[in-house]
Amino acid sequence: MSKISLQKISTRAPKTLDKEQTRLKTASILRELNELQNLLYAESKHSLLIVMQGMDASGKDGVIRNVMTAMNPQGVTVKSFKVPTAEEAAHDFLWRVHAAVPAKGMIQVFNRSHYEDILVTRVHKWCTDEMAKKRMQAINAFEELLVTHNQTHILKFYLHISPQEQQQRLNERMQDRAKMWKYNEKDFEEAKLWKLYMKMYEECFNKCNFVPWTIVPSDQNWYKEYVIASAMHQLLLSLKMRYPGLKK
Amino acid sequence: MSKISLQKISTRAPKTLDKEQTRLKTASILRELNELQNLLYAESKHSLLIVMQGMDASGKDGVIRNVMTAMNPQGVTVKSFKVPTAEEAAHDFLWRVHAAVPAKGMIQVFNRSHYEDILVTRVHKWCTDEMAKKRMQAINAFEELLVTHNQTHILKFYLHISPQEQQQRLNERMQDRAKMWKYNEKDFEEAKLWKLYMKMYEECFNKCNFVPWTIVPSDQNWYKEYVIASAMHQLLLSLKMRYPGLKK
Repeated sequence: MSKISLQKISTRAPKTLDKEQTRLKTASILRELNELQNLLYAESKHSLLIVMQGMDASGKDGVIRNVMTAMNPQGVTVKSFKVPTAEEAAHDFLWRVHAAVPAKGMIQVFNRSHYEDILVTRVHKWCTDEMAKKRMQAINAFEELLVTHNQTHILKFYLHISPQEQQQRLNERMQDRAKMWKYNEKDFEEAKLWKLYMKMYEECFNKCNFVPWTIVPSDQNWYKEYVIASAMHQLLLSLKMRYPGLKK
Repeated sequence: MSKISLQKISTRAPKTLDKEQTRLKTASILRELNELQNLLYAESKHSLLIVMQGMDASGKDGVIRNVMTAMNPQGVTVKSFKVPTAEEAAHDFLWRVHAAVPAKGMIQVFNRSHYEDILVTRVHKWCTDEMAKKRMQAINAFEELLVTHNQTHILKFYLHISPQEQQQRLNERMQDRAKMWKYNEKDFEEAKLWKLYMKMYEECFNKCNFVPWTIVPSDQNWYKEYVIASAMHQLLLSLKMRYPGLKK
């Protein structure tokens, strides 16, 4: 597998791609996703775990709002990982994560994830390189457990935006009343650590790849949504699911 | 408050109501619900608990699929209450229910609920009348706790169908491949206990009414969805929510 280098990957859609055409395609994929999710739930043989990572304002919430909404909330749950509570911090770093993995038939979305334990923690030096290495091994083993022992399919998305796009979005949060609740002045401080974050992200992609990552160019929401919906669609189709017959 | 008698309430839409017109109205309400849910989440002052009860095949899953899907799954969670696990059964009947109530900013949907503990249990005589009376008191106190102490707004829906409609839907589950996974031969046995169920339901409505029930005529899905979406819409509007300003 060739190494992922974020600098070499565009944060924008291919120039030849038409925005309106793509939007129509996405809408049609979302309708099919709704059907496929129903089938996943009915068949209850597989489960799907979607890990979403990205810098502040990279559009994680937007994906949930515009892509995940296409499916039945009875079969789709979203877990947002925030600063660990006292109880969570008193356990190993995967404890709270394991508790949230999808049961058969379910789709679970992680808004941030166990990867924060080798991202923000490393940037701020709360986690040493040595500890990070051990965590990466633990993460690979954990993801392997889910894939091998419970038919869990994992999609890991990195929402790739440029630092300029991030600045613009953070500024918008100060001006648009409907976005102010997302504003956190600390985000601007974190943004200054951009390069260090990118370095740590690249290590995630290259070392925690028992399940490979998808780097999603995310400066334009319409393209980001298309890429993610397509990846889900392709994966679910590949499972060749069928509605079960009558129970005997 | 006048007593609810199910026999006196139609299971169908008012005859004067136009189906296509109503569907368009529902679609427009759902778009507004999406916005209102975002506001509820952003403001994080209130929460909404939706309790859905109804006989087998009364269309609870359909409400979740067609109404709740309108909203962001990050802010909407669905809990289906099934036969209690060993751990749940080792606690009081509200233990597992309390664990699932919505946090501020969230919408929680109960697909079945604590009411089963005074419905199916009474029909099968696993719960005496005396015990049921105590449970009803506990339920009223519990709902009052949520309303009074955490700004939780509760909507309780009974999906009202006719026994004929139920038979037809149960039969469909045997014939339509996409519905077979829902088929359970026990449902036909339960259906024979219709009158007893209605009696127990009426007691719920008339005795557990610290929060009043909405009886939803549900033989036609388009009307059921309209009534439920409208009730949610009206409630959320009444909260007069606003996007919060910048944190100081």
